[in-house]
Amino acid sequence: MADKSVKKVVLAYSGGLDTSVILRWLQTEYNAEVVTFTADLGQGEELEPARRKAELFGIKEIFVEDLRETFTADFVFPMFRANALYEGQYLLGTSIARPLIAQRQIEIAEAVGADAVAHGATGKGNDQVRFELAYYALKPDVKVIAPWREWSLTSRTRLLEFAEAHQIPISKDKRGEAPFSVDANLLHSSSEGKILEDPAQEPDEIVYQRTISPEAAPDIATEISIDFAEGDPVGLNGETLSPATLLTRLNALGRDNGIGRLDLVENRFVGMKSRGVYETPGGTILLAAHRAIESITLDREAAHLKDSLMPRYAELIYNGFWFSPERRMLQALIDTSQHSVAGRVRLKLYKGNVIVTGRESPNSLYSARMVTFEDDQGAYNQQDAAGFIKLNALRLRLGAAVGRRGGAL
Amino acid sequence: MADKSVKKVVLAYSGGLDTSVILRWLQTEYNAEVVTFTADLGQGEELEPARRKAELFGIKEIFVEDLRETFTADFVFPMFRANALYEGQYLLGTSIARPLIAQRQIEIAEAVGADAVAHGATGKGNDQVRFELAYYALKPDVKVIAPWREWSLTSRTRLLEFAEAHQIPISKDKRGEAPFSVDANLLHSSSEGKILEDPAQEPDEIVYQRTISPEAAPDIATEISIDFAEGDPVGLNGETLSPATLLTRLNALGRDNGIGRLDLVENRFVGMKSRGVYETPGGTILLAAHRAIESITLDREAAHLKDSLMPRYAELIYNGFWFSPERRMLQALIDTSQHSVAGRVRLKLYKGNVIVTGRESPNSLYSARMVTFEDDQGAYNQQDAAGFIKLNALRLRLGAAVGRRGGAL
Amino acid sequence: MADKSVKKVVLAYSGGLDTSVILRWLQTEYNAEVVTFTADLGQGEELEPARRKAELFGIKEIFVEDLRETFTADFVFPMFRANALYEGQYLLGTSIARPLIAQRQIEIAEAVGADAVAHGATGKGNDQVRFELAYYALKPDVKVIAPWREWSLTSRTRLLEFAEAHQIPISKDKRGEAPFSVDANLLHSSSEGKILEDPAQEPDEIVYQRTISPEAAPDIATEISIDFAEGDPVGLNGETLSPATLLTRLNALGRDNGIGRLDLVENRFVGMKSRGVYETPGGTILLAAHRAIESITLDREAAHLKDSLMPRYAELIYNGFWFSPERRMLQALIDTSQHSVAGRVRLKLYKGNVIVTGRESPNSLYSARMVTFEDDQGAYNQQDAAGFIKLNALRLRLGAAVGRRGGAL
Amino acid sequence: MADKSVKKVVLAYSGGLDTSVILRWLQTEYNAEVVTFTADLGQGEELEPARRKAELFGIKEIFVEDLRETFTADFVFPMFRANALYEGQYLLGTSIARPLIAQRQIEIAEAVGADAVAHGATGKGNDQVRFELAYYALKPDVKVIAPWREWSLTSRTRLLEFAEAHQIPISKDKRGEAPFSVDANLLHSSSEGKILEDPAQEPDEIVYQRTISPEAAPDIATEISIDFAEGDPVGLNGETLSPATLLTRLNALGRDNGIGRLDLVENRFVGMKSRGVYETPGGTILLAAHRAIESITLDREAAHLKDSLMPRYAELIYNGFWFSPERRMLQALIDTSQHSVAGRVRLKLYKGNVIVTGRESPNSLYSARMVTFEDDQGAYNQQDAAGFIKLNALRLRLGAAVGRRGGAL
Repeated sequence: MADKSVKKVVLAYSGGLDTSVILRWLQTEYNAEVVTFTADLGQGEELEPARRKAELFGIKEIFVEDLRETFTADFVFPMFRANALYEGQYLLGTSIARPLIAQRQIEIAEAVGADAVAHGATGKGNDQVRFELAYYALKPDVKVIAPWREWSLTSRTRLLEFAEAHQIPISKDKRGEAPFSVDANLLHSSSEGKILEDPAQEPDEIVYQRTISPEAAPDIATEISIDFAEGDPVGLNGETLSPATLLTRLNALGRDNGIGRLDLVENRFVGMKSRGVYETPGGTILLAAHRAIESITLDREAAHLKDSLMPRYAELIYNGFWFSPERRMLQALIDTSQHSVAGRVRLKLYKGNVIVTGRESPNSLYSARMVTFEDDQGAYNQQDAAGFIKLNALRLRLGAAVGRRGGAL
Repeated sequence: MADKSVKKVVLAYSGGLDTSVILRWLQTEYNAEVVTFTADLGQGEELEPARRKAELFGIKEIFVEDLRETFTADFVFPMFRANALYEGQYLLGTSIARPLIAQRQIEIAEAVGADAVAHGATGKGNDQVRFELAYYALKPDVKVIAPWREWSLTSRTRLLEFAEAHQIPISKDKRGEAPFSVDANLLHSSSEGKILEDPAQEPDEIVYQRTISPEAAPDIATEISIDFAEGDPVGLNGETLSPATLLTRLNALGRDNGIGRLDLVENRFVGMKSRGVYETPGGTILLAAHRAIESITLDREAAHLKDSLMPRYAELIYNGFWFSPERRMLQALIDTSQHSVAGRVRLKLYKGNVIVTGRESPNSLYSARMVTFEDDQGAYNQQDAAGFIKLNALRLRLGAAVGRRGGAL
Repeated sequence: MADKSVKKVVLAYSGGLDTSVILRWLQTEYNAEVVTFTADLGQGEELEPARRKAELFGIKEIFVEDLRETFTADFVFPMFRANALYEGQYLLGTSIARPLIAQRQIEIAEAVGADAVAHGATGKGNDQVRFELAYYALKPDVKVIAPWREWSLTSRTRLLEFAEAHQIPISKDKRGEAPFSVDANLLHSSSEGKILEDPAQEPDEIVYQRTISPEAAPDIATEISIDFAEGDPVGLNGETLSPATLLTRLNALGRDNGIGRLDLVENRFVGMKSRGVYETPGGTILLAAHRAIESITLDREAAHLKDSLMPRYAELIYNGFWFSPERRMLQALIDTSQHSVAGRVRLKLYKGNVIVTGRESPNSLYSARMVTFEDDQGAYNQQDAAGFIKLNALRLRLGAAVGRRGGAL
Repeated sequence: MADKSVKKVVLAYSGGLDTSVILRWLQTEYNAEVVTFTADLGQGEELEPARRKAELFGIKEIFVEDLRETFTADFVFPMFRANALYEGQYLLGTSIARPLIAQRQIEIAEAVGADAVAHGATGKGNDQVRFELAYYALKPDVKVIAPWREWSLTSRTRLLEFAEAHQIPISKDKRGEAPFSVDANLLHSSSEGKILEDPAQEPDEIVYQRTISPEAAPDIATEISIDFAEGDPVGLNGETLSPATLLTRLNALGRDNGIGRLDLVENRFVGMKSRGVYETPGGTILLAAHRAIESITLDREAAHLKDSLMPRYAELIYNGFWFSPERRMLQALIDTSQHSVAGRVRLKLYKGNVIVTGRESPNSLYSARMVTFEDDQGAYNQQDAAGFIKLNALRLRLGAAVGRRGGAL
């Protein structure tokens, strides 16, 4: 059982039923002073109700912050420099938000003299790991309270009973259980659990909240351009935009064109497989655009080195090791590669498709003169290829000459 | 300059103008007996005209073979076990065909007592490398003739003059130059060069030969299922099919739903960037389906290990090292992983989208009981997570305790 | 707290004080029937006293086995095919023994109908992880008892009190505490703890048990030869030997020449750094010899691929994942590479040094004709190098031409 | 054949017979003005004779430079931060010197307005690649002259005839052929060719020039300490020293104790295996010391990430890609890791052995309190290990539960 000698705890507080129950539970079970922290990471909810609710619970130190720009500029964009995909497909929308929330909780704990932090993640998922690894990395002596692993409110019924017993308002739609669980921020929304637990069954359309379906999207493509500088997007359709504004706009474009849905069975860090439905409209566009601008501005071996390390980088973020030496080292490698990744990518968005239609850059390494089928006026000497092949083949020929034909070992 | 003391040469012969010119050039310049080899790898052309043409050139040993099943079963499917993508996007359609052609050329050379082989690839591309590395790995003392690197027919005009001077029939549509260059086989078709040389310009619709556009595809989704055994697809919509038949059917499904187009700037092994337009309709569906069946049947670390090595494996195939010790070693690792990759994947094909709608397997590692948000009846002990996190965090805490907060180094 | 409903437990039993206390504790605390398993893995201790002791405790099912050949052939040699070194230096002597012990415990549990297994590893070390991961991988429903994590015998005094209270004989030298802790098997012995806990202090000579010091070794070198087949050593000085016999002989040779000592600070899987003193006399010779025979028989890219994956393979074994999909996949890759790794290596052993003095193989890929500074009679065309370099440089030149000199990004 | 339209060429000039012949050959064959560049990289030869000889050849622009500090600080030390070993053993002494020589040649070419550079490396080795890749990366339009690939002086006799015909002085010992070829700099000396071409034969003692044999070394160990800051050595036995001075001192210590010999069959980038004998006395000590200081100051995952990328980094340097985007990216990753790699390592040097006897650091991550076998006063909770193991085992248990026992796939 957790150490109950907590004096003051900073709670990641959404204002919803679950974290309200946690808030009260911390007050009653731990007899601790609770400080609430509510952040706008683009999840699309009002923050002021959370503040008012916290006040109703008698909270004296209430932190409400708009972190959308920080989230996008310091977490989302650095990750996109790596073209990070977990298990080849997942754009890590939930994973990348947790370290920022944890970081602010710890900063607030330091500021208000709290000795503990608390989060509302369950004991089966990845989020508990992401929160707590970040907490410990940032404040090694912090006390961590994870109510879902500790308390006896193991069923919905008991949770509602506790809420009622403690005068916690329950909005009508929370009486019945939600048919699945949702997490959302500026990068994505994810849905999992309950009606989604059978991976043989297609998700119902009601699951999708961020995107219309490809079928429902317009019959005419939307054409856009994205400008990049040092590996990050900086403009849309020629207009320079702040990180969060740009991502917000891309989300709207993605949503309207049915872009960015993913129905995935993935492997959790805690050891089991789970099924998630993700919507990452803007991020899906951004990945395609970033790959396209890299394709003309990044050296081959730089690109391949990045690609070879990407799975590891994505795994680190998924597993919650954003604040770790190894993520920092990989980030240094990735960031070093992005200096000349600049220029404009044109794309066509159409019913779920993101189609690159053009890329151009002042830093382009593409040389039409070099590659042309036409006379290249000496840019490339085809005779060089003969020697190149001969020496690349030499070890294979030496092997074959002693009986190891076809690369046999 | 190449060694001219060649007696008998096996030419990879398509029957088209270029390889017909090569055929005659080998006869006149090398004074060598030419053996032709024409293979059906699913490029969608008749082979008999090539035989007749070869006869007209006085060729005595003519090999015409249907290799579609071998190509699919022994080259395409092993590669798809790896989920191979070059530079994150390219399904390696051209790369994977070259080793098979080279292998058959060498086998024929051994059978007919030829001392040389010849191919029609240019000196700027990857294909020369792929052909020749395979030749040398399989027959280290073979003489290789690469006319495009050797001859003086450096312009279209000269080529046509040579053809006319040597009574080589020129079909009308070859008089004028093709606006781009095409390679095709059962897995894909690729287009590059000339009108495609500016990566800032969208390809014209005429470039596409294997797929209709997403816009032109039906407004109603097509639902299919694919069955897998030991990592390979074995059935479509419940019907067991041979490898080539299955891939042919997937191609038709992909074509009709606008699936599998890719407009890419890629990095060639010989050192420059080039722009290619690829159409891999069936392969695009297959990749999505294979990933989906792996998602429920493959252990996490097995999947991550594969993912981490995939870029290297794809690079090897792209660069022409199919017949190499390192490709064989990676293949052994990959094949070992596929034993339980079996079951059925359901998919929806719609206007360029491949949407997984269900996966099921007798070997599934997905456990609803383990992952459920509901009461799991003790399948998973949430307390374990606390210790798991604590020990994963330990090194980060020890670092932070001596001043390296947040994973600082 | 652990589940106490255990009926029958297979204990890894050495016959020493600690595991005797565990045995009695299992009988008294769990009220379980205990089955003992004592194995000879080459640790250099008699097994019969353990049997007699177990009989004194009233054990009815006593398993005593000589596993030295299995240990060497199926665990040590496969690992050496990879040239495995943890953190660049440690030959994994302890790590590689644990899976075999665990495997036999599980096999015995299945045979005798036991529902639980127990080991004597502490809660801070790696061995608990290695034992338990293997247990769970082999018998997922097994109950695991780890007394050191459970009981209240947290000090030496309490342990001795328990021993006395339960009539467990305590040999005189166990009254006082050992100045450090030892693990040993045919591959190595390790020492750690207590007097070794300060990594700034050199270990006292009394720590070393398997080797004499380089200073004490003979002034004259010992010359030996080792024969390999399929990557494994099969003969010493021309004499064919069984795996365990060969390793035993190498140990004696290493011991006498002061070979195989290592004083290391390493990183444990459970998160902290620890200091160990290892002696791996035969293994140190074997690694040098295996690398030498590979140097003439293994293709370059095969060798580099192995080298690039070795750290991961070593980490897996260190962390206890011998029985895992990913270790099996890597093993398949490694084993595939060893087919032609055969021949003879000559070495000189001298005061801590292992000096390769010659390698020869019927499968050698080394070609004096190719490499010679003298006239090679056309084996290698130096002109090929020009083209090879030109195309390898092409991307660097294209980069430099647009201002990225010296590989700048 | 090479382009003969060269006006002015910067030659890497040692003053020896071979480069003197090259010098004259450039004057006569290319009719080019030659600029000589002679550098002290610690090879242990006087530079003034080279200057005088160049003057005799009528050279007007003569560059003679002491680059030992630059070589050590900007090339050797950055490489040692990675613990780089090619093929597990080779400390890359030749490889790391070539980029610096090439860089200075190009800088001089820019300064004096030369359009070409020339080197004396043969067409079979790695050095031609290393020189030329660096040239092209730094000055993409430079003309490269590699006389050994171009000229007709293919035998020793012809070379001497040319020398005599052109009044090039031949020192007596150069009349007869040297029994092997040597390269040397401050980091190492290498010997290869001729009497060393049979890898089954032990090298004769005369081959060794930088070290006495272990047998000849003193019977008493030499104890030293090395101080590190930010990953680089900065002091010896408590005395702060410049990089080159420190390396020079370590070389002397290594030489006197028979340290740093390596007899190796390695794989060249150009495709064949070759046998080299290397002496790296100071570097061998430095590697051991650097690993030791990292062992207490570097986080586990940081160290493992470095280790996993080391083979690739070493391969890049071996192959000549020092001035490449990928080397720069890896260097950024490595350098990021070294910030806290500081402290003192004590070592014992004895007859070929480098034995670490202590390491200490203000930044140590080693915690005796954490690791102790004694009561740790709550620093570590052994219960955490149970959960840690349980969740690490979960996927293995789920696999075993569906029939994949022991990590079967």
